[in-house]
This record gives sequence, structure tokens and C-alpha cells, in this order.
Amino acid sequence: MTRLTGIALLGAGRMGQVHAAAMAAAGARLVAVYDPVTRVADALASRTGAAVAPSAAAAIHHAGVDAVVIATSSDTHVELVIEAVNAGKPVLCEKPLASSLAATRRCIAAIGDQAARQVFLGFNRRFDRGHAGLREAVHAGDIGRLEQLTITSRDPLPPPLEYVPRSGGLFRDMMIHDFDMARGILRQELVSVTAHGSSIVDPEIGKLGDIDTASVTLLAEDGAIVTILNSRRCAFGFDQRIEAFGADGMVVSDNPRQSGLTRYRPGYPGTPAPILEFFMERYGESYAAEIRLFLDCAREGRDMPVNAYDGLMAAYLAEAATLSLKLGKTIHLTGPDQEFDHV
Amino acid sequence: MTRLTGIALLGAGRMGQVHAAAMAAAGARLVAVYDPVTRVADALASRTGAAVAPSAAAAIHHAGVDAVVIATSSDTHVELVIEAVNAGKPVLCEKPLASSLAATRRCIAAIGDQAARQVFLGFNRRFDRGHAGLREAVHAGDIGRLEQLTITSRDPLPPPLEYVPRSGGLFRDMMIHDFDMARGILRQELVSVTAHGSSIVDPEIGKLGDIDTASVTLLAEDGAIVTILNSRRCAFGFDQRIEAFGADGMVVSDNPRQSGLTRYRPGYPGTPAPILEFFMERYGESYAAEIRLFLDCAREGRDMPVNAYDGLMAAYLAEAATLSLKLGKTIHLTGPDQEFDHV
Amino acid sequence: MTRLTGIALLGAGRMGQVHAAAMAAAGARLVAVYDPVTRVADALASRTGAAVAPSAAAAIHHAGVDAVVIATSSDTHVELVIEAVNAGKPVLCEKPLASSLAATRRCIAAIGDQAARQVFLGFNRRFDRGHAGLREAVHAGDIGRLEQLTITSRDPLPPPLEYVPRSGGLFRDMMIHDFDMARGILRQELVSVTAHGSSIVDPEIGKLGDIDTASVTLLAEDGAIVTILNSRRCAFGFDQRIEAFGADGMVVSDNPRQSGLTRYRPGYPGTPAPILEFFMERYGESYAAEIRLFLDCAREGRDMPVNAYDGLMAAYLAEAATLSLKLGKTIHLTGPDQEFDHV
Amino acid sequence: MTRLTGIALLGAGRMGQVHAAAMAAAGARLVAVYDPVTRVADALASRTGAAVAPSAAAAIHHAGVDAVVIATSSDTHVELVIEAVNAGKPVLCEKPLASSLAATRRCIAAIGDQAARQVFLGFNRRFDRGHAGLREAVHAGDIGRLEQLTITSRDPLPPPLEYVPRSGGLFRDMMIHDFDMARGILRQELVSVTAHGSSIVDPEIGKLGDIDTASVTLLAEDGAIVTILNSRRCAFGFDQRIEAFGADGMVVSDNPRQSGLTRYRPGYPGTPAPILEFFMERYGESYAAEIRLFLDCAREGRDMPVNAYDGLMAAYLAEAATLSLKLGKTIHLTGPDQEFDHV
Repeated sequence: MTRLTGIALLGAGRMGQVHAAAMAAAGARLVAVYDPVTRVADALASRTGAAVAPSAAAAIHHAGVDAVVIATSSDTHVELVIEAVNAGKPVLCEKPLASSLAATRRCIAAIGDQAARQVFLGFNRRFDRGHAGLREAVHAGDIGRLEQLTITSRDPLPPPLEYVPRSGGLFRDMMIHDFDMARGILRQELVSVTAHGSSIVDPEIGKLGDIDTASVTLLAEDGAIVTILNSRRCAFGFDQRIEAFGADGMVVSDNPRQSGLTRYRPGYPGTPAPILEFFMERYGESYAAEIRLFLDCAREGRDMPVNAYDGLMAAYLAEAATLSLKLGKTIHLTGPDQEFDHV
Repeated sequence: MTRLTGIALLGAGRMGQVHAAAMAAAGARLVAVYDPVTRVADALASRTGAAVAPSAAAAIHHAGVDAVVIATSSDTHVELVIEAVNAGKPVLCEKPLASSLAATRRCIAAIGDQAARQVFLGFNRRFDRGHAGLREAVHAGDIGRLEQLTITSRDPLPPPLEYVPRSGGLFRDMMIHDFDMARGILRQELVSVTAHGSSIVDPEIGKLGDIDTASVTLLAEDGAIVTILNSRRCAFGFDQRIEAFGADGMVVSDNPRQSGLTRYRPGYPGTPAPILEFFMERYGESYAAEIRLFLDCAREGRDMPVNAYDGLMAAYLAEAATLSLKLGKTIHLTGPDQEFDHV
Repeated sequence: MTRLTGIALLGAGRMGQVHAAAMAAAGARLVAVYDPVTRVADALASRTGAAVAPSAAAAIHHAGVDAVVIATSSDTHVELVIEAVNAGKPVLCEKPLASSLAATRRCIAAIGDQAARQVFLGFNRRFDRGHAGLREAVHAGDIGRLEQLTITSRDPLPPPLEYVPRSGGLFRDMMIHDFDMARGILRQELVSVTAHGSSIVDPEIGKLGDIDTASVTLLAEDGAIVTILNSRRCAFGFDQRIEAFGADGMVVSDNPRQSGLTRYRPGYPGTPAPILEFFMERYGESYAAEIRLFLDCAREGRDMPVNAYDGLMAAYLAEAATLSLKLGKTIHLTGPDQEFDHV
Repeated sequence: MTRLTGIALLGAGRMGQVHAAAMAAAGARLVAVYDPVTRVADALASRTGAAVAPSAAAAIHHAGVDAVVIATSSDTHVELVIEAVNAGKPVLCEKPLASSLAATRRCIAAIGDQAARQVFLGFNRRFDRGHAGLREAVHAGDIGRLEQLTITSRDPLPPPLEYVPRSGGLFRDMMIHDFDMARGILRQELVSVTAHGSSIVDPEIGKLGDIDTASVTLLAEDGAIVTILNSRRCAFGFDQRIEAFGADGMVVSDNPRQSGLTRYRPGYPGTPAPILEFFMERYGESYAAEIRLFLDCAREGRDMPVNAYDGLMAAYLAEAATLSLKLGKTIHLTGPDQEFDHV
């Protein structure tokens, strides 16, 4: 069987352009592009030689399209995933799969279990070289049984205030990546979620009902403890680290540096180069790895390693954390298909 | 007023010997030593030229004794502190001040508020060079407002199983250091404690009713979030780190290395020297700094920077964490003089 | 004036393919490719959509070709540079410009002084992010007056033995990069060269009249001392470091790591990820930066920042080092246009 | 045989006080102290409980003196070493053994070969934890055959100008430590010395006929190449590093840090704690290790691991480097007992 390479891209905004660059780097070919704002689609098409499609459906069914990448606004994801699945095309959808936990459940029900496992969900951070190396080291048993997992994730700057009300809140909008990361490393059921949060970076965020500083503790079935620390602002860059501690050792994925340059000055005796600034610098490479893996799995008909069910579970954990913070209680997890006991 | 230097040491066991070495390094002089096991006192006296006293009281009142260091078994601390206070001698007492929160309250009541502030309590880790540097940096405003404080504290090996039942449990026996460290850095009231724990290092510890792996979240009055991670076993040494994250930056006290030696071999390309093995290697220096500070404060009649009230507060937090784990609930803090609401 | 982007590539072997990939990453377009081995040119053309030219001259004059990149075998460089210069096309030539110092002089004489300054010579390591950052820091005065410059350059493995006799020797084949690096950082005249060398990596290399381990000391006009260390074999990867020490501080360009992953195991307490393996991993990025700079300078008609005169000077230093080793003497430098005194 | 512990200290100035502190830390006892300036001897005696001796000879023969430590001015070393040797007491002499190469030869002739091997010469840097670890790793074969050894040694500040004329010059006064370090690591004959030097830190040093910036290349019998870099001034502290590169890997002794504290601020993203300031901070510990080793060897009647012959060889290398710089030539080494060919 030959390699799949012809891709339809739905959405040519910032994330769409990221995916377009990743395709080029991964050796895939952008065949058709659709964006509700024609000018945006045109611009990308002219740079890449892709055709501009008049509709998402037209892009999906365009000649030479082997696979579909969805990077439109979040509220259109479910509809487009269903369209692509019905067209029999492998699909990679930007996260989130749907705008709520209930909508995610409904999307999975609509496409069915098997298709759900074959929708690649864009948790690209799994494919960061350092984070992936950590996960592989844990799975290979390099640190023995995993006992404590600590994920630190801090953005350089808070989002614009006007975005806050429609973000769904920090747990759904930001920590969702870390919930997925924890699940990918742990590979076992989680039994409880306890959330703490504050609005100390910017009190305006608090007035809008959200938090900007958070800590969540997850307890795994076997007793392993996961700690996730988030902040919406970090003075020294994009702080993205994971520490996995186990019976036989520890493995840490630290912030890579912009270069190997180190400065020695009085008072600054050995200052390394800055860490990477934001997600494109830090995770840019991971998008290309994601596309490669997506196309490989699609070609072989395998389940996607990160699929709609992972989207469901991450949404479920975000929901539970939101509830925990609201109630000031630990939430015991009974599965994404059931209502929460505590409400 | 001349510098105080003549010291009576009560207890010549392991901790007593640590203090004796620290005195020598600090330029203080061991004048009298008492230990219920005469052979142990004799051994230390013969190495240092100190007199062996027939009783604790005799040591306290021995000629040339300016100050008293208590390193006897925990259950004798209250009685000896009272004896030394009554003798008008400045006293440094190994932690814990008393064997329970209630006993700590009673001890403070017995000696009175002013004396309580002049009993130096041996939370020596505060004087570790890296940890002290972090605290000073935070207090100096180097990182702006403190938002997230993360303390990792892992012992190389669990204590002997027979010690577990009389240890008071991980929170009172081990995390007590970290509670004190958090308070020293934060300098503000804490409003809640949430504890999680597992027994995954050694199930036998679980059978004895204790845990060996723990995570505690403390919420400060202003919204800062403290996370403390403990493990009773660490494969690569004595893991003792603090990370203080604030509005303007971050400061980290990492594990120092045994030397500046780094090895490059295929597969191990740049392996630094090991971290320090256990508390004597890591915190040995801090005991000498502690003694120096104790004698300086005593000479000037100042309140001790770490005193009986700090012992009370650390005991209170340990009590709250123990209760939080037992109940599976967040404990809201109302002060060490009141009973917990949730019991 | 519009940006130049259409490129003719002469030579489609390993280095040609490196340049082709760099062009794509830099946003330039490969228009025509020539290689004496047609199969090799065909393969690259089919991957990139470029036309295959029947001769180097045909490629240079192909429609849409704005600039020429030469990556053929070293003995053809002079002829092709002259051809491209005569065609009025900006040219980037892989190092070395010519096979000997005398041939380099003749090439420059043939094209004339002005053209010589507009031939970009492919000392790509200058554009490595860390090395370039070090150079800029030194030029910006960050370390004050430069006093000691130390360049360490070690290959993972020696070249095949059959390559050794036609390599020109370690100084001309390998250290030539470091001579150029030193000149780019120093920006002043060098007054002497003293070389030491051994054949201890592989005695067979010694039997062929070459060395595999070398140290060269260069003295600059103002007294700054440059030390270059080379080895043909390095057990832990491609060791490429620079240390610039000055009156006010030091700046070091260290080996970057494959990722931010660090492992803690008993005996390996904090082992970072491996360094990059060889030149494509370490310097891959620098080729794209080189192409971008070449096209920018060409468009603006500026002298190339690394040009035929830099090739001449590096060849001159390599010649002097070779002579110094042979004679066991320091060689005093009088300029690349004069014969060496000591022969 | 019991452990030797009673020590006579000749010279109670700065170095004498360093040795006195080292004795205490090593568990040895200062019995008698002599200094031509009585006040200085008195001060040290009153702090330590030692007796003040009216002369060096009286100190050497004082009751309870098992061993002699010489820390008087350099011009008295020979005479005092002979006195101590004649008294049959083991002796540790501060470097240099004598004020010139010829005087060193005469001293060894005077005491004889066997005694010369039992005079411990105070090259204390050999006992620095990092440097000693490097030496042991090399000797244990951890890096395979040693091929390149690079020693960097930079003082924080130049000595007072008035000291320069009587210092003997940088090679004899400062690099002598590095010559000894190189010999201790290499354990084989050196065949040539090539020196380069400049006066760019302070031109006044140049006017006094000395240099402040130097590079020396030593060639070992088996082809290993040693590079020593010295500077009289370092803006960021006391820069003391060694890099040993071999067939199977590399081991580096880097500057230890004052603590494990690291600061992250915009522009200074991960600045470690300062390196140690000068020799007492960096090498303080090594003096205690030196005394311990001296007493152990003396008790067992073993040859000292660093003895008068090591002093002779270091002086010989310093002499050769001085001559190399003067003549601008490589000096071929024929042994410390012969005149140099090139003069």
C-alpha cells in the first residue's frame, strides 16, 4: 500500500497555517484548502499551490485528497468530523473535539466506536521530543513503577480578557493539555480529581469568574499521585516541564533552550540561553511529528494513538476539575458516561 | 556583652553528635554533656574535652555553660526546655518541641509567650545555603509576588518498619520540615490544607496505617498555592528541592552535587556528580549556621527567628494534613488554638 | 527590487542534497540541478520538481535561475565559480574555494577583487545559532576585550583511511572550519601559528602521514591567544564548542542537546539527553540561515560576509599550521600573498 | 602503630592559618607554632592552645610533635626542610620547595633521594574533590587512553604590582600548580613545552617584564597533548577547570557553585549561583584532605604521593616555559638535571 500524502485542510487561520507548515515538513502535500474567509484560504493556497475549495465538503471530496485536517473554529469540529468520517477519509481534528463533555459524548455516539478510535485528536504536545522521550522512558520501565507525576505548564501571558468568558475556563481551555499528557503517561484509570485555583495574576480574570493560577491533584487507581500546576503568566517564557518519579529513578522533561550559548558575567555567572517563547517555538516540531504519525496510522488502518476517546477523557477531567473547584471538594471519578455525584 | 560560647549538650546520640560537630565548626565550645546512657556521653566528652554531667539539670547549671542544646529523645523535650528556661539559659531544642499538638500548646503555656519566642526550635533546613538563598530572594522581592511554591522532599530509604507506628505518621515525622519551610518562605496565614497519600513504596507501611508517598496542597490567604511532595524512598539520593514562582520570575533551590565532576560516555553524555546522600551530607553545614544564629540572637536577647510558635504551627499543619487524609476532605484552618471543625 | 529565489544547484550528492533541503526551509526554489552522475541529478529533481540540466553551464543559464550554489567535487570549484561570475549570477560555493593556497590566489586573481568579495564561501558553521550568538556577543562588547578564545572541534569518527591521503591533512580538511571561526570572531590580524599534532586515535592515520589529534595556538596582533583543539574521534558525539574569555566576562557556545530530557538513576543522577550526532544534526539549521543570508546580500548587491578572501585566509592558516607541525616551529604570518619565510 | 597527630607549624601567616584550620578539620592537633613575628605566632597559639616556640628548631623538637608543616616565606623552605628531615620528622612543605630550579636540585641532593620522596610538597589542588575525582577516573581507565588534557586556571584579580618583580613570573608563580596537576593526571614523561603569553590584562605587568595571559602546550611521550590556559584576572570569579578527553569519553572538573540556587528572570532565565571566589573558598577543603593524607603516609612510612621530586619537575617545567616564551621556540625536555639546549 502506498503512503497517503494528499491532504485537505479545513481552516486556514493561525492553527491551519501551523498544520500547513507541519505537512510540508512531514513530506505530505496540501491538495485543497477551505476557510469561510476566502481571502485567508486564497493566501495559503497561493503560497502552497493547493486548490481553494468552495466548501468544507468540497475540500473533503476534492480529487487527490487522502486525509482531512480540521483546524476551523471549535464549534464546527463535530459537524466536520462526521462529514469526513462519512466520506471514509481519515481525519485529524484540532482539540477540542467538541465544545462540552455532553457534545463530545454525542459526537462519539454519532460516528460510532470504531470511527471514534480512528479520529486523530490534536493533542500535539504528546509528540514533543522531550515529553515523548519521558513517556517512552516511563513505559519502558526505566524508572520502575511510576509513583509521582508532576506537570508544570505556564503560558507567557494571559489571553485577552475578552476571550476569558468564552474560553470555558482554565481547566477546559489550558489544563486540558496536561490532563491528556498525564493520561498518556499513566495508562491507567484515575479515581479522583481535587482542584485549587486563584486569580492572582490578574484580578480582572477573577471578576470574569475564572482563575489564572491552578493546582490539580489526580489520584490513579494504583495510588500514583499526579500534580498539575498551571499559570496564565510566566515572566521568563513558556514554562513546560514534566517530572516522573518512580521506584527506580526519575526522568524530567525540562524546557529546551534556544541555543547552547551560556554567558558568564559578574552577577550572572553562567546564564544559559533563554527558553523557548511560546507554543510555536516549543511545540512547532511536534506538529510535523503528529502529521507523520497520523498518516502512518491511517495508511495501516490502525487506531489512532490519540483519538476521540482521549478527547472525551480529557474533557471529562476538565469538567471534574471545574466542579471540584466550585464545590471545594474532591471529585470521585465514575466514568465519562455518568453524571457527577456531587452536583 | 561578650559572645556566648559555652554550651551544655543534652543527648549525645546521633543528633547530639551532629550538634557537637556543628558547635566546633561554629567556634562554640562544648562545656558539659549529659546522656542517660553514660557510655555515650563519655565517648563524646573524651573526643571534645567536655565534662560529663550526672544529670540534665547538672549539665544546664554546669560552670561556664551559657546556653543549652537539647537533642534527647522527643518525649523529654518539654521537661528539659522548661528546666533550661527556668535556669535563664537560652535553649535550642531539636524538633519536635513536643510529641503532639496539645502537648506543644501546653509547653508554650508553661513557659509563657516571651520565653516561647526565645526557644530556638531546630528546623535546621531553613539554614541550608540554597533554601536560605531562595527565602531571601523571595523576601527581597526578586520574583515579585509569590504565586506558586513547590517543595519536593524525598528520603533515600524508608525508616525501619518498627519505627513507623511510633513516628506519628509521615506528615508529623517527615513533612513537618516542609510545613515549616513553606511558612518561613510565605510569611502569611494559611487558610486550608488538602492531603493525598498512598502506600506504594512499601505496602507494609500501609498495613501499619501510614503512607509513604504524599502530596499536600496549602492555600495561603492571598491566593498563593503551595504544593508539597514527599516520598519515603528515592533511588538516586536525598531529593530536596524548592521552586518559588512569582509575578516577575522564579527561583529554584536544587540539589547540590558532590563535586563539579561531569562524565561524558557513550549513552551517558554529561552525567554530573551524584547529589548528596542524606541529611548529614546535605544539611550538615546548616547545623553550624543554626548554632551561630542561635548564639547571636541569645547574646543580643532577640526573639529566635525559628521558635516554639513555629513548632506549634508546623505541628498544627501536620495535624490538619493527617485529618485531611483521613477524611478525604480539605481542612479549613482556624488557628492552632482551636479544635478542628471537621472531626 | 524583488527577492531572488530561483536557484541552480551544481552537484546533487550529499552536500547538494543538504543545500536543496536548506533552500526549501529558507523559502528559495530549486529551479535547475546538474550533476555529472545523471541518476543522482534525476533523483533530486524528481523529489523537488527542478529541471535536470545537461551541463553546469546549462544549469547556470537556465531560465528563472537567479543564483548559483556549487556543491560539486572540490577540484571543479574554481572553474564553476568563474563560469557563474561571468554569467553575472551571485554564487555560493562550498568550501574549499580551491584545492590549494596557490590555486585560491589564482582564482581570486581570475575573477578580480570585487567579484571575490561577492562569492559566498560556504563556512556554514558561522551561522550555527550558538556560535553566531557567541560571535555577536563578543562583537557587541559583552565580554569586553577578547583575551583568550578556545575552539574545540571533534568528529564522532575518523574518515575512511582511503580518504586520508587526498584530504590534504587534518589542518586543511578539518581545522579549516575552526580557522575561519576564529577569524570571524577575532576580526583582527593574526601574527603567528604554532601547531602540535599526534596520531593516537589510529596509528594507521599516522602511517599515511597525517595526524588525528591536534592543537594549534594562534596569536593575534593585540595579544589575544587562540587555542584550537581537534580530534578525529569522539566517543560521545560531535563535540563542537567555543569559549571566548574577555576582560568583563566569558561566553560559551556549548553542544546543544537532542531534547530537554534528563534521567536520574542510581549512578547516573541527572544525565542529560545526548548531544547531536554529527554535522547534519548539529549544523543542519545553519545551512538554511546561510542560504537566506546569501540571497539577501545578493539582492542588495552587498559584499558577502564570508567570501573568497575568507577562503584564502583560512587556506593560508591551514598551510601555516601544516608547515609549523612539519618544522616544529612557530610560523610568523606575513600575509597570504607571500611565501613562508621558514621553508 | 598509632596515628600521628601532634604537629609543629612553622609560619603563622595567611598560609599557616589555612594549615592550622585544616589540621583541626582533619582531626590533627597543633602542638607548637613558630613565626619570626612573635605577635603572629601568639595570636594563632591563643586561638588553638598550641605552645609558641622561640625558634623553628625549637618547634620541630617540641615535645609531642610528630610531624612538621612549613608555611614560612619561600626563601626559608630549604633550610627548614633539612632541619626537619634531620630531626627524623615527617614534613609537609608549602610550595615551592626552593626559590629556583637549581636550589631545588641542591635541596634534594642535601637530603638524599629517600628523604626527598618523603617530603610532602603542598600542591594542595591535587586534593580538590572534583580534580581528584577526574584524576582517579582517568587512572581507572574510565575514558580509555588520555589524548587531550586541557587545564584552565584564572585568578579573580592580578597580584599587587609590587609583587610582580619578585614573583618569578607567571609560569613559576601561578602555572606551577597546573604543571603539577598535568603531571599527576598524565603519569608519563613530557617531551616538549611551548609557551605563549601576553600582557593584555594590565600593560603595567608587561612593563615589569611579566605576562598576565598565557597558553602552554605540553607534549607527552605517547603523543597526548596538554593545553594550559592562565589569566591573572577573571571577571566572574576563580575559574578552575580541567577537561580530560580520551578514547572512550571525557571527564570534566567544572567550577563548583556556592549553592544549588538558580534564578529565572526575564533576560536571565536560569542563572546558577556564583562560582567560588578564590582559593580559600574553592580549595579550602583540599588542605584538610592534604593533611590527612600526609599523616597517613607518614604513619605508614610510605613515600609521599606528592614529594620533592614533584616540586623539582614542576619547577623544571616552569623554567622551560619561561625559556620557551623568551626564545619564541618549543623547548625539548631532557630532564631536570640537565641544562637546557637552547639557551
